[in-house]
Amino acid sequence: MIGRRLVNGVESSAISVDDRGLQYGDGLFETMSAQDGRVRHFERHMERLAEGGRRLGLPVPDAKLVAAECERALAGLGAGSVKLMLTRGPGPRSYRPPAEPSVTRIVVSSAPKPRNDPDDGIVVRLCETPLGLNPRLAGIKHLNRLEQVMACAEWNDPAIAEGLMSAIDGRIVCATAANVFLVREGRLVTPAIRDCGVAGVMRGIVLAAARELGITSDIIDVRPEDLGAADEVFLTNAITGVRPVGEVLGLRRYAAPGDVTRTLIERTTRADA
Amino acid sequence: MIGRRLVNGVESSAISVDDRGLQYGDGLFETMSAQDGRVRHFERHMERLAEGGRRLGLPVPDAKLVAAECERALAGLGAGSVKLMLTRGPGPRSYRPPAEPSVTRIVVSSAPKPRNDPDDGIVVRLCETPLGLNPRLAGIKHLNRLEQVMACAEWNDPAIAEGLMSAIDGRIVCATAANVFLVREGRLVTPAIRDCGVAGVMRGIVLAAARELGITSDIIDVRPEDLGAADEVFLTNAITGVRPVGEVLGLRRYAAPGDVTRTLIERTTRADA
Repeated sequence: MIGRRLVNGVESSAISVDDRGLQYGDGLFETMSAQDGRVRHFERHMERLAEGGRRLGLPVPDAKLVAAECERALAGLGAGSVKLMLTRGPGPRSYRPPAEPSVTRIVVSSAPKPRNDPDDGIVVRLCETPLGLNPRLAGIKHLNRLEQVMACAEWNDPAIAEGLMSAIDGRIVCATAANVFLVREGRLVTPAIRDCGVAGVMRGIVLAAARELGITSDIIDVRPEDLGAADEVFLTNAITGVRPVGEVLGLRRYAAPGDVTRTLIERTTRADA
Repeated sequence: MIGRRLVNGVESSAISVDDRGLQYGDGLFETMSAQDGRVRHFERHMERLAEGGRRLGLPVPDAKLVAAECERALAGLGAGSVKLMLTRGPGPRSYRPPAEPSVTRIVVSSAPKPRNDPDDGIVVRLCETPLGLNPRLAGIKHLNRLEQVMACAEWNDPAIAEGLMSAIDGRIVCATAANVFLVREGRLVTPAIRDCGVAGVMRGIVLAAARELGITSDIIDVRPEDLGAADEVFLTNAITGVRPVGEVLGLRRYAAPGDVTRTLIERTTRADA
């Protein structure tokens, strides 16, 4: 079954060409996994959205309203995903944000996508498109995503599941639509998200799970050579969860899933995770 | 009179929430000045659009079609401006661009805005929001404009007409919606647009006019101290043309318009410019 689209609570698939979301990418989004008609990790998504709203000066609607609209969009679908977009709404032609924006709220539900991740881990590549550095925009999930689009346009081999992106100074920061973790000598390592990249909800869930499990996490800069020296590598994303990496093309292969990755998959897919 | 909106040649002000222009800012735009029902410097705008299309892998429609739609949008308005947006169209939820995108073409005309630029030059400030560096996106006029939005949100004093933006390494690159030129000892200086910023159409026209007038232009890195040492400063933008700067707040005042600025204003406002 195909999903539903709600614009400001009304079934519609249209927004105005004057909307600042289109004009400037002036907005935020969340892509959330749904089960049994409800969004998983809803509070974490709303926390990140609120942080994005604070950073952009964009008023974020009440979480109860968003939750109700997500459930409406999921009616009849049950499982799948919900994408919420929040824009600064229609406005006169000017970069300057209006003092009292009429925020546009867009909720789109989708049926689950078939997943064919191999048992021995996905293949990822290193992308050439760099991530520009801007501490003001780092971490939040805003609508300016051309860097990710261009990185994904670099390959079309369906055997390659994802691409790792580096900051302009060579640090590996994240995948195009996922965060990245390394396991080395039993410790977790994940890149610091301080001047580019998105601080993923599933990244936060994995870090919390690791704490509970007594696994130490180092949030530090990661270089390509660190990937080469890792025992395990995995990606995280709210929709696809924890995905073990079997190979970073041109760099090395990993026995996947490794023990730590397997433990974290089990922990984060539990119903109460 | 209010302007018109055309979406793919049809009078409409709606696009789909699935459009990649909204979802990712996956597209380009041009904001063009119009006189007597026609776009000024249309060919230069189409050249930059074509360059953006090449860089993003986005097919750009035939310039004749765009010209005809701009003229339709301007009918009854005559003068004012036309904003053209070109997006990679609706697509399934994925950063990966579709192999054969159905490009969305949006043309919006607007009546001229009243301009109250002071005779002794506008006041500009230095913005704190930095421009992230990304050579893949520099120069072209893409739809990812959150940095400019956040820079404009830094002030609301209407006496301040524009804000200068610096790259993350401190170089001054452009204003939020204009390029910047300095005059020093009779030579023009304008920042190189190599890893951030937009290569404005009016910037190109001013550089061409300077060549014709025998004025040497240096396209180099510009630091705040260079602004302090300049004899004249002006901004360029396709809609507002060449605007003399009377003061950079906290840095210095200039006698405006200076001789070189005045010469370039005259040259670029000629009907055949």
